[in-house]
Amino acid sequence: MTRFHYRCSECGKTYGRDEVRYLCPRCGGAYVPGEPLRGVLEAEFDLGRIGREFDRNAPDWSLFSAVEPEHFPTYPVGNTPLAKAPRLGAEVGLRNLYVKNDGLNPSGSLKDRASFLVVAEAIRLGEDRIVTASTGNAASALAAVCAAAGKKAVIFVPAAAPKAKLVQMLLYGAEVVTVKGTYDDAFRLSLEYTRERGGLNRNTAYHPLTIEGKKTVALEIWAQCGFEAPGAVVVPVGDGVILAGVYKGFRDLLLAGLIDRLPRLVCVQAESSDAIHNYFTTGKFRKAALPSTVADSISVSVPSNAHMARRAIVETDGFSLTVSDSEILEGQALLARTTGIFAEPAAAATVAGLRKGADGFRQDEVVILLVTGHGLKDVDAALAGVKVPEPIPPNIEAVGGRR
Amino acid sequence: MTRFHYRCSECGKTYGRDEVRYLCPRCGGAYVPGEPLRGVLEAEFDLGRIGREFDRNAPDWSLFSAVEPEHFPTYPVGNTPLAKAPRLGAEVGLRNLYVKNDGLNPSGSLKDRASFLVVAEAIRLGEDRIVTASTGNAASALAAVCAAAGKKAVIFVPAAAPKAKLVQMLLYGAEVVTVKGTYDDAFRLSLEYTRERGGLNRNTAYHPLTIEGKKTVALEIWAQCGFEAPGAVVVPVGDGVILAGVYKGFRDLLLAGLIDRLPRLVCVQAESSDAIHNYFTTGKFRKAALPSTVADSISVSVPSNAHMARRAIVETDGFSLTVSDSEILEGQALLARTTGIFAEPAAAATVAGLRKGADGFRQDEVVILLVTGHGLKDVDAALAGVKVPEPIPPNIEAVGGRR
Repeated sequence: MTRFHYRCSECGKTYGRDEVRYLCPRCGGAYVPGEPLRGVLEAEFDLGRIGREFDRNAPDWSLFSAVEPEHFPTYPVGNTPLAKAPRLGAEVGLRNLYVKNDGLNPSGSLKDRASFLVVAEAIRLGEDRIVTASTGNAASALAAVCAAAGKKAVIFVPAAAPKAKLVQMLLYGAEVVTVKGTYDDAFRLSLEYTRERGGLNRNTAYHPLTIEGKKTVALEIWAQCGFEAPGAVVVPVGDGVILAGVYKGFRDLLLAGLIDRLPRLVCVQAESSDAIHNYFTTGKFRKAALPSTVADSISVSVPSNAHMARRAIVETDGFSLTVSDSEILEGQALLARTTGIFAEPAAAATVAGLRKGADGFRQDEVVILLVTGHGLKDVDAALAGVKVPEPIPPNIEAVGGRR
Repeated sequence: MTRFHYRCSECGKTYGRDEVRYLCPRCGGAYVPGEPLRGVLEAEFDLGRIGREFDRNAPDWSLFSAVEPEHFPTYPVGNTPLAKAPRLGAEVGLRNLYVKNDGLNPSGSLKDRASFLVVAEAIRLGEDRIVTASTGNAASALAAVCAAAGKKAVIFVPAAAPKAKLVQMLLYGAEVVTVKGTYDDAFRLSLEYTRERGGLNRNTAYHPLTIEGKKTVALEIWAQCGFEAPGAVVVPVGDGVILAGVYKGFRDLLLAGLIDRLPRLVCVQAESSDAIHNYFTTGKFRKAALPSTVADSISVSVPSNAHMARRAIVETDGFSLTVSDSEILEGQALLARTTGIFAEPAAAATVAGLRKGADGFRQDEVVILLVTGHGLKDVDAALAGVKVPEPIPPNIEAVGGRR
């Protein structure tokens, strides 16, 4: 039996599980265009009890879950590989570098974790529609989990979204509404839709269980590190919800007494999409003016979860940095040719961050690079970085290279 | 310590592990354009001993492996999810339908399993180059595993190969040789290359460990079914090596006394690429004249492993069928909207096969659908099957559908 309540991450007020659905009514409760969300809720468990009950030899992960397994859709989320990356490690001067490859979730990104839990919640509540605004991974993930669960996904996307990104969600059978306008328009419209027509809104951070879903990646990393906290986790950051989720996971473990310190969380943003980086370094929030980067999944002007993301860096003694598009594409190629992992540009930003932030790591500590999305999601971006060779006639003499 | 010898699948002659490398010298030993390979070798283990030593509570999979784990590259192959598909099952009248999603291997296809083992063998032998001819998944897989292992992948592809397919292998750092000619030309050239310049040839079925690598998917299915043999496994078939690998895995388990019967293997081919289907139904081999199908990964005129593939169907009391391109694309959409799995067309052929071959299954038996490659490998194919909606203005009144 799952027992938890929600606590507002700002004012601290608590609510019963079914007393409130999205933001803290006292602190915000409404979406204001151009500002990060206020009053994002966090699920608070009886972690002392969980710490006593959790058995490393027969892990019962449902103890940490805000939705009971009986409501889970038949969709095999998570359990993605964590593998040592000795060749990449040698390039960046780290002896214990590991890559957590969450691009190997079924729909190709870490967003499956959040969609999975929100759809489980919809099953518990008997809601048959789940609604979101997104241009990419979150929408594909929601469409995929809804397909497995027999629920309807209603997705609002800006009309400028590339067709290739739409294929996945359409094939999964989602109702896709393309909007003449910006992502902000799509976001606002998705909120109006759920208010006027019903359904459960899955917008990231707006629904608190998106953070709970994403925290499962931290629990897995902990288990895969032999139930020990790594030294640092390097996270690509757009709206800040993955960073907040990773933080929430390790903090739950700390409060449960299952680890005795938090890993440092390292926030990597694209130069043009650096609102959280700026917020962390200056202490003041201002939106990123013109987020235009090859790393589309972390291209965000107003990060919805900026407040919690900043706290994640501060409270883990982490740090933050930005990388350029050319550094991101170099990082993507370096990751591919040293590990065999083809990551989308946003996810490869972390590799660029590893190099740039090398001074922030100890050579021997366990460092986790979090890959959040599959490179096959954006073949065009990768195409820019490779050179297709000229064809040769079909005889061995024409083959160049070593004799 | 791994102990096995090779046995020729045709004449039965045995060879020590390092006595022979590719085909049986007595039976074939050479590649003849237009004919399936002769004298394909199979690794033969002391299965009686393995059956006695294998412990279901602490499975040691290395018992079944032709290469010792100390030679394995740090590349997390396999361990892909097997999930029940109740909604797809309801559509096709099966109560216990499961999907094994091997598109979630790191490079996006089951071919990672074969490449992994051949690269491990190269590490054991001290070979620094691995060579293959391929247009798609096998080449990407080899390039990815070589990247993780620090080995050089040399890949021969027909010049007509689509650029998108080249991106992955180039990004992984492979040496890609584009050949003005057919796949047969590329195949022949890759053999000449290894003969004259060295390196280990990974051509499918030509190197016997490709079959051993692919058999691991059968071992996993067995474990994921609670260490029981399923009733049937539905396999998309091109060159016949995956079918042969699945067969080899279950036969090893049978000879080890770990299962007491083989699952029926169901071979699904594209109508225009039906050489193995014809071979099975008529008993005579003839090549498929003009293999042109949307399912490019199973588009083969002369299947290299036709003889062993036919035996796999016969000896498991299985059956075979063909499906059209439109049935394949319908199958792809049906799979996506009932399970959330986006499979490449070749892999989706099995869904079409399930429908068409419905009479061949018992309603209650455990049927496994083998998904061999990720849909994101070929977004264009899927784009043909969906309709991108017209954009609407950003207000709630313009949103259609249910009020």
